[in-house]
Amino acid sequence: MARLVMKFGGTSVADLDRIRNVARHVKREVDAGNEIAVVVSAMAGETNKLVGYCRGASALHDAREYDAVVSAGEQVTAGLLAITLQSLGVNARSWLGWQIPIRTDSAHGAARITDIPAETLVERFRQGQVAVIAGFQGLAPDNRIATLGRGGSDTSAVAIAAAIGADRCDIYTDVDGVYTTDPRIVPNARRLDKVAFEEMLEMASLGAKVLQVRSVELAMVHGVRTFVRSSFEDPEAPQVGPDGEPVGTLICDEDEIVEKQLVTGIAYSKDEAKITMRGVEDRPGVAAAIFGPLADASINVDMIVQNISEDGRTTDITFTVTTADFDRAMALIESLRSTVRMETVSGSSDVAKVSVIGIGMRSHAGVAAQAFQALAGRGINIQLITTSEIKISVLIDAAYTELAVRTLHSIYELDKT
Amino acid sequence: MARLVMKFGGTSVADLDRIRNVARHVKREVDAGNEIAVVVSAMAGETNKLVGYCRGASALHDAREYDAVVSAGEQVTAGLLAITLQSLGVNARSWLGWQIPIRTDSAHGAARITDIPAETLVERFRQGQVAVIAGFQGLAPDNRIATLGRGGSDTSAVAIAAAIGADRCDIYTDVDGVYTTDPRIVPNARRLDKVAFEEMLEMASLGAKVLQVRSVELAMVHGVRTFVRSSFEDPEAPQVGPDGEPVGTLICDEDEIVEKQLVTGIAYSKDEAKITMRGVEDRPGVAAAIFGPLADASINVDMIVQNISEDGRTTDITFTVTTADFDRAMALIESLRSTVRMETVSGSSDVAKVSVIGIGMRSHAGVAAQAFQALAGRGINIQLITTSEIKISVLIDAAYTELAVRTLHSIYELDKT
Repeated sequence: MARLVMKFGGTSVADLDRIRNVARHVKREVDAGNEIAVVVSAMAGETNKLVGYCRGASALHDAREYDAVVSAGEQVTAGLLAITLQSLGVNARSWLGWQIPIRTDSAHGAARITDIPAETLVERFRQGQVAVIAGFQGLAPDNRIATLGRGGSDTSAVAIAAAIGADRCDIYTDVDGVYTTDPRIVPNARRLDKVAFEEMLEMASLGAKVLQVRSVELAMVHGVRTFVRSSFEDPEAPQVGPDGEPVGTLICDEDEIVEKQLVTGIAYSKDEAKITMRGVEDRPGVAAAIFGPLADASINVDMIVQNISEDGRTTDITFTVTTADFDRAMALIESLRSTVRMETVSGSSDVAKVSVIGIGMRSHAGVAAQAFQALAGRGINIQLITTSEIKISVLIDAAYTELAVRTLHSIYELDKT
Repeated sequence: MARLVMKFGGTSVADLDRIRNVARHVKREVDAGNEIAVVVSAMAGETNKLVGYCRGASALHDAREYDAVVSAGEQVTAGLLAITLQSLGVNARSWLGWQIPIRTDSAHGAARITDIPAETLVERFRQGQVAVIAGFQGLAPDNRIATLGRGGSDTSAVAIAAAIGADRCDIYTDVDGVYTTDPRIVPNARRLDKVAFEEMLEMASLGAKVLQVRSVELAMVHGVRTFVRSSFEDPEAPQVGPDGEPVGTLICDEDEIVEKQLVTGIAYSKDEAKITMRGVEDRPGVAAAIFGPLADASINVDMIVQNISEDGRTTDITFTVTTADFDRAMALIESLRSTVRMETVSGSSDVAKVSVIGIGMRSHAGVAAQAFQALAGRGINIQLITTSEIKISVLIDAAYTELAVRTLHSIYELDKT
């Protein structure tokens, strides 16, 4: 017997047929003797519709009212899944955020979970009842509904798994796991059986869209073993691997990964823009004078590189932002010319970031050099480099993205088991 | 300054444009210095969609889950109206049933309101805040959402008006008041300025669809002056009558009606079916043996007539039910033949009930005789008669419904002011 959280996203509950399919997945786990909490998203398209209503009602809408409106989607799915489970003979009831309650801070629209009392849920498990929990929502200190921001249902699932001490949090989605890279670019990309939390965090933030970054952070902090698997498998007899375990990717502590790969995956993101300031006066505090105002404007800066210029008295600074922030960031930098002397400012959104990720890098030198050499061999110019303990990222011309991903995927032999 | 409840139904909040129109109605009353609670239904069509989901998920669905699903519609409208009011500069916030809380009994799906604590709402009024309340929903003793059954938003509005001691409960709808009869049948039917609670109760239960019966009962018990008016008037300058008051119908205590009419209105219902048992054994307890099982099956019996038969040893019983219950009632009566002896059972759904209503009847004899004579003069055969202090109802062949309504409307001179 195990205690499991099962999370189903919007496409998995898009209509009554798919909800019935979800109910059969749940019934399989119940029949196997497990204690189950299910977390559901809104039916595909519903959240967008409700968000559209709020925007249509007023461009500057009260986040508390937005939360009341938008949370209705998950409420509907939770009730419908409970009804469907009951019709299959499974003892189930729906739980809304305010009923448990899933307590959050007061940041309506993008709240963080602060506490989930688990006693009642656990008591119901003992009585054989499945908890069907509306994802994405909680109760703020003002006794009003708070939503967790986009992708919040993953975060709900992981937080609930931590609260109830679940053995595993199963994220059912429209792919069957986490891959060494995007299979649309590299057809022989391989599904990973296990990924360490740290690696997944890098992959999630670098554009692999399987899991929200916040939910991976939370899973890492609380050590929640998170299993990504497909909701489109046969619910009564899901495919198993050679080890007899269901097909999917387990995101877990690196201690649980016996054979550590040098490199686990290649991630990429085209949602990047680069801004370069040349001939910036080189004095103490100049970086703060530039990046302080960007932070104040809520513009997220990712890579930063600073070089001393040829004359030794000025400096060149390059940084990247998301494409959505590009125009605002350019305008802001131009406006700084009155306080920071600089010769030229130029920018481009025609860039992409490609990253090599793997916890094995910690103990192996030469991974970076191998990457730079391989890219150079293909004639790909590297514009910026940043590295961490388990990641190397390079900024390149966006036109070379696919070539770079394929090249790196191949040199680290990621297509081989 | 007055304290008002303003209730808007589904067609009045069907889309963002109409919600904006509703917000302008509210703003008018706020600008006039009034304290306002608004009660809203779900956007037109939403409740039917959600009910359809529940039925599709399972024919025999848990009423508690049904409530969680279906109440989402009003939740969305309440949030959207609050946003829209704020965009017009009106201080407003949404309230869900569980937040106030509107306490109900545990009859999920058709709950009754038991208590509404008003202190918080009243305090917010003093701070100049409009309360936008989701209709149709409350909080059951099990800490789960309960809905009030169809038309429940009218009931919510009247109950809230009673709780906060409102001066008036304005029901905004798609007609501009209560008429002497259905204007589609009698084009010169006249809008009534005032109707007594008792009269409205009879009209509502007899098929005039302006207000739900339960909300009128509640208004009568608590003495809530209820004003039916059109939401399609110009929000900034609604039409007024010769007395300078807005156009509509006030449902109030009869003491407030100075000139009491003999007859106030003619109501009709085609949603009737008649069942006749002939040659029923005439012994004590036979009525209970028949109507007990009907009640147990939740079949609502309306008119009942029993005559002694010619031989004096058996009796004939005729009663009416709604057309929806007709087949079930026929089958049930047939199944009673094992316990109650009867010669024949026959039924017809080709009947209609036409009623003459007026509190003036209490003090005037001859109203019934006048009606029977007029119908006979038109060759309309009366199949059943029931009367109360303020009402005469006759069951006739459905084909004569319109003729009967027109005839009665005319003989009591209801088209004259």
